[in-house]
Amino acid sequence: MPSYRLDIQYDGSEFSGWAVQPGKRTVQGELEEALGRVLGEPVRLTVAGRTDAGVHALGQVASFAVEREAPPSLGRALNSLTGPDLAVPAVTEVAADFDARRDAESRRYRYRLDTGAAPSPFEHRRALHWPHRLDLDLAEACAEALRGVHDFTAFTPTDTRHRHFERTVLDASWDRESGTILVFEVEADAFLRGMVRALVGTILEVASDRREFADFVRLLTGARRSEAGDSMSPYGLYLVAVVYPGRS
Amino acid sequence: MPSYRLDIQYDGSEFSGWAVQPGKRTVQGELEEALGRVLGEPVRLTVAGRTDAGVHALGQVASFAVEREAPPSLGRALNSLTGPDLAVPAVTEVAADFDARRDAESRRYRYRLDTGAAPSPFEHRRALHWPHRLDLDLAEACAEALRGVHDFTAFTPTDTRHRHFERTVLDASWDRESGTILVFEVEADAFLRGMVRALVGTILEVASDRREFADFVRLLTGARRSEAGDSMSPYGLYLVAVVYPGRS
Repeated sequence: MPSYRLDIQYDGSEFSGWAVQPGKRTVQGELEEALGRVLGEPVRLTVAGRTDAGVHALGQVASFAVEREAPPSLGRALNSLTGPDLAVPAVTEVAADFDARRDAESRRYRYRLDTGAAPSPFEHRRALHWPHRLDLDLAEACAEALRGVHDFTAFTPTDTRHRHFERTVLDASWDRESGTILVFEVEADAFLRGMVRALVGTILEVASDRREFADFVRLLTGARRSEAGDSMSPYGLYLVAVVYPGRS
Repeated sequence: MPSYRLDIQYDGSEFSGWAVQPGKRTVQGELEEALGRVLGEPVRLTVAGRTDAGVHALGQVASFAVEREAPPSLGRALNSLTGPDLAVPAVTEVAADFDARRDAESRRYRYRLDTGAAPSPFEHRRALHWPHRLDLDLAEACAEALRGVHDFTAFTPTDTRHRHFERTVLDASWDRESGTILVFEVEADAFLRGMVRALVGTILEVASDRREFADFVRLLTGARRSEAGDSMSPYGLYLVAVVYPGRS
């Protein structure tokens, strides 16, 4: 069966997340409907990184297999059928056994903070407004502590479907994107649900002197969810890239 | 009378422009209503650069005079009363004779093009989608030709209220903002209505080989509006800064 990879971007503000939910506008729902219309057969997408309501994506990847070859115009057709807040920059035919989720080596997320005194009109629902104290050295120390293998039980909701809580963080750092925009980026083999937003909430506690750095390090060895910081707004979060063996 | 300068930013997508119009949401209308509520007296704003419906601002400036001193919390109050797409990053007390429009030495505008094959979901109503040919050398030659004093009659609607059509362009250039975003910036002592959008439309004709460069140069000596190119979408246009003597 012909198989395809979709590279996908979306502004998540007006979506109830990736996964299909009856009666709600979701990225998967809108894409599967458009694919069904173009290809004339029902399509089920496999996604690299399920995102929650409000979360954005610059480099989401999904795959699907169909009975009949897709026309070369598939990408253009999808972009004309979906809303302006959803785009498919690339459609690629892939090996029949390609699976966007299972084959992914790592995922990279970005969390954006708008640190201006007044929230920027251009960052509304695209960054968390954070006009508070933020010690970048402490935030960066937390990012460094994240690298390696840790138990992230404290950073995912207690009513979880996950069975394993160890994840390998390949890279984590803070950076200044522009004038008032600070950015946290983290890459890991895989993420627990809500993990980045809970990590950011806890790191911001450390960086604003409301939690000891040593306590953040302790949480990385496994703890109850209630011991870590709050989950931050989904609007600051972006799935930036999914990495596959031998390619990105 | 105490006089104040407001520094203003807005995402213009949901505004019918700067100027008050009955029954429409405008930047001036929303700000004057908020000012009236906070200050307890009617306020009339003088603005440096009137913007049309859909046009954005990163560095708009307006001024006003009132009977009573404004409270130090005025900026915070305004930001809480206006929508998330409108912000007042700074309120400054100024000399009683300060006039945001008359005292401005120059204005700087930016026009953003999204040159990706599929329009970016993050640039919807923030850039013009331009997946077509664009010879940057030709575009830059047009920018260079703009510098100096020219007659811009060809770049403003014929049913104009302007009486003088000469303007002095202090700076004009093209630049790459990031991956797929190209940016045209132009600074002049003042602009005719619709001037930047008509200039961009005409430069894009030159840069896509639909008009001779020499013809663009000819238009700068004065011509009918119909001889120049189309006016481009307001959503790509930003008022970036207003420059005052001895400060920006």
